[in-house]
Amino acid sequence: MKILGIEHIGIAVNNLEINAQFWQLLLNNNDPITEEIKDQKVATEIFDTGMGKIELLEATSLDSPIVKFIEKRGQGVHHICFQVDDIKQAIEELIKVGIELIDKTPRVGAEGYLIVFIHPSSTGGVLVELAEKPVN
Amino acid sequence: MKILGIEHIGIAVNNLEINAQFWQLLLNNNDPITEEIKDQKVATEIFDTGMGKIELLEATSLDSPIVKFIEKRGQGVHHICFQVDDIKQAIEELIKVGIELIDKTPRVGAEGYLIVFIHPSSTGGVLVELAEKPVN
Repeated sequence: MKILGIEHIGIAVNNLEINAQFWQLLLNNNDPITEEIKDQKVATEIFDTGMGKIELLEATSLDSPIVKFIEKRGQGVHHICFQVDDIKQAIEELIKVGIELIDKTPRVGAEGYLIVFIHPSSTGGVLVELAEKPVN
Repeated sequence: MKILGIEHIGIAVNNLEINAQFWQLLLNNNDPITEEIKDQKVATEIFDTGMGKIELLEATSLDSPIVKFIEKRGQGVHHICFQVDDIKQAIEELIKVGIELIDKTPRVGAEGYLIVFIHPSSTGGVLVELAEKPVN
């Protein structure tokens, strides 16, 4: 497993349209990628800085994990994601050393990446996502 | 002002030595940079992924902002930092459009960067740092 860098920072927001205004201004980017990820019950807007992306996450249903997160902690950073070269190898290596994963097999996340989440109990309170870029 | 990318993610931890273990393993990096930033009452360990850094933050005094953060929210992501080309220009531009800054003039942060913090009330709940790389 090789970590290639910070792929994105996921931020839980109440309202994509309102919250996007600050990020558009800061990142000078009026053309984010928008995508709904039904599996995770979120709608996203993704701003690419050229070196790491900002992924805004709005709940699309009342039982979305984003609703629970905001109720408990308020709006803010929900997870951080690292790009890996080989997601299956990463899962194997992490399980072998006792790191607790939320998923045992990769699933498809935003932009078609193969993803897995590491449980915050293994990371010191941070929800960490690993993602392998799809082959185009 | 131009954002050059995600410079680092700052993570509030109870204990640098214990929390570093996971990040050393994940990032395959046993040689973080350690630094105490007296001004901010924190000790840091910085892991460079090659594309964005992870900055662990431990309080060095009971009145450190990291103590208050962990009491309120638990261990986890404390702030995210973007590299900018020109910090003074960034401050001017953000003030002009009504973004609330915590600092009005740059101060010196980890690794000698000139830094400024944007208040979470202007960002949608995220503490955002901007940092200009020092000229070596």
